[in-house]
Amino acid sequence: MAQLPPAIDRLIRLLTTLPGVGRKSATRIALRLIGSTEAQCRELAEAIVTAKARTRACSVCGGLTEDDPCSICSDARRDAAVVCVVERASDILALERTSRFRGRYHVLGGLLSPLDGVGPADLRIDALVERARAGAIEEVILALNPTTEGEASALYIGKLLTPLRIRVTKLASGLPVGGDLDLADERTLGTALDERRDL
Amino acid sequence: MAQLPPAIDRLIRLLTTLPGVGRKSATRIALRLIGSTEAQCRELAEAIVTAKARTRACSVCGGLTEDDPCSICSDARRDAAVVCVVERASDILALERTSRFRGRYHVLGGLLSPLDGVGPADLRIDALVERARAGAIEEVILALNPTTEGEASALYIGKLLTPLRIRVTKLASGLPVGGDLDLADERTLGTALDERRDL
Repeated sequence: MAQLPPAIDRLIRLLTTLPGVGRKSATRIALRLIGSTEAQCRELAEAIVTAKARTRACSVCGGLTEDDPCSICSDARRDAAVVCVVERASDILALERTSRFRGRYHVLGGLLSPLDGVGPADLRIDALVERARAGAIEEVILALNPTTEGEASALYIGKLLTPLRIRVTKLASGLPVGGDLDLADERTLGTALDERRDL
Repeated sequence: MAQLPPAIDRLIRLLTTLPGVGRKSATRIALRLIGSTEAQCRELAEAIVTAKARTRACSVCGGLTEDDPCSICSDARRDAAVVCVVERASDILALERTSRFRGRYHVLGGLLSPLDGVGPADLRIDALVERARAGAIEEVILALNPTTEGEASALYIGKLLTPLRIRVTKLASGLPVGGDLDLADERTLGTALDERRDL
């Protein structure tokens, strides 16, 4: 083991392609896997393949689901008149964790980014407009990252939706709750000041 | 996706059993896997199973290997007269990275820990004594963690080996190289003082 056995080395190389996994943690993970039973290794391997095989994008919102439409789109108790637009399916998880939103979702699958060659046709924008045209949507909340690409996408979508007499809103920007004013960057603090609210 | 699809949820649960992977990073990893191609998922799954299936413990040193004996034990250029004793196979990697050691290894597979019910018979101590009895070993370096269990194991192994006229040494304790005297805990600093060396 002046160098690692090739099969472990290959496993480590593949593990480092995962988000947040560097060479050191990949090595720790690989050695832990080797140290576990063959059944445990097979279980994890099978779970990876199964999760990929079973999961698809919901044909309505684009979120991750095993059944189509997904549990949110088919939940009659969730308000179909309010649709929250997000960049990625994983953003839905973050919003669901707040327990504040009882409407439906729409996943764009990215943000407009002319420099990276991402235009409107590459995103699920047409599908959003179609959902809006079909009626019954009163408000679209744009829950996009407060970045250049996020703002550009929000503006673009806003222009498409306002003629349809739909209220278009976006998430508030400002100080993180529980955060320290001292630690906020100047753009966040500037926005918090610009968008100050009456007590 | 008020809750995650069950197959993803199961994958996340299994991923959290890996070292250094919490709920949040497991979710990120699972979503990345779902977002990758089916071929990529299969490749990782297959790499896990293959690494586990191909890797075994070297019958001589106990290190991880695909061929038995391992590349170190079968390397004639490595000094068979000096054997470095480590707790786990992964410790060999750490020592190899120093490029300072040109001898052979011996993996104990744990440390003596009466409270956890780990006795000499649970470790590869007999195999070490046998290797020593077979002759040709002049020095055994105990590269065990400087903890109670590590020290106890070192003392126990030392007692077994000294009658065989083998030099038994252990790794030096003291200040980490490049470390800050200020940041060293008092036991490390105390040991560094006790074991000071002439310039």
